[in-house]
Amino acid sequence: MKQIVIREAGPLDMPRVLELIRELAVFEREPEAVEVTAAHLEKDGFGDRPAFKCFVAEVEGYVGGMALVYPRYSTWKGVVLHLEDLIVTESMRGIGLGVALLNRVVQYGAEKGVKRISWEVLDWNKPAIDFYKNKGALLLRDWDVVHLDELGIQNYLNNI
Amino acid sequence: MKQIVIREAGPLDMPRVLELIRELAVFEREPEAVEVTAAHLEKDGFGDRPAFKCFVAEVEGYVGGMALVYPRYSTWKGVVLHLEDLIVTESMRGIGLGVALLNRVVQYGAEKGVKRISWEVLDWNKPAIDFYKNKGALLLRDWDVVHLDELGIQNYLNNI
Repeated sequence: MKQIVIREAGPLDMPRVLELIRELAVFEREPEAVEVTAAHLEKDGFGDRPAFKCFVAEVEGYVGGMALVYPRYSTWKGVVLHLEDLIVTESMRGIGLGVALLNRVVQYGAEKGVKRISWEVLDWNKPAIDFYKNKGALLLRDWDVVHLDELGIQNYLNNI
Repeated sequence: MKQIVIREAGPLDMPRVLELIRELAVFEREPEAVEVTAAHLEKDGFGDRPAFKCFVAEVEGYVGGMALVYPRYSTWKGVVLHLEDLIVTESMRGIGLGVALLNRVVQYGAEKGVKRISWEVLDWNKPAIDFYKNKGALLLRDWDVVHLDELGIQNYLNNI
């Protein structure tokens, strides 16, 4: 079995991380939605006040997966950890990268002392849902995600 | 009509803000879930690296509502704004506090240049859903929220 290495991503990983983000966007049927560039990721994720932390999964020096997290604030639990993306490239599924990345994320959350790790999943992505449930996660089906997008923000302000 | 004042909350508002948080938790049928104290809110929301920003709605000097926001990171859109809570106390509904608070949140997001403002709503809270849709927000019903709670984190780590 090939050895999986999980490590913190650095700025030089961002072009490959962006490829993984785009691959997921295609899977989620929204390939045009990715407006972020590698330069944005480098600027936003590193430096004085990083907006996220990223872990990558390597096999033989090749990055086959990534997990991207940042803190949120629960008015019930205080600072919590949010997992924005957990991506394994299609050609490297089934060899343990997803589990290894999630293990690292949960360990990181425990190190930070958070009382919750949250994420979102598409309700038709049964393999992902089964994987998460098997790991003890709770699916909150009665909560809906609401977005006011860029155009929505403009329209909103024009109608105040 | 009574004048509504929307202003940024300070540390001294946190005891009243916590009352509003608890009132919402009762409405959401989870009154025991609030572990945060006013001291936590004061420590986490103010100082060098605040974990959130809070706005309060006042009528005649009495705080009848609040909105609490913080940045998130979208791998598609970059830094976005998340509205964790928008609460109006029951006795002061219907006089415009909710709209005034949401207006301020959307203005704040626009000032920050974000491409999205997100939040979550309970799928049985029809008045809230109608209010948000009327304001141009999109309901993403195919996304489910996933939580690994404090016990789940411990169990997870014990089974790695």
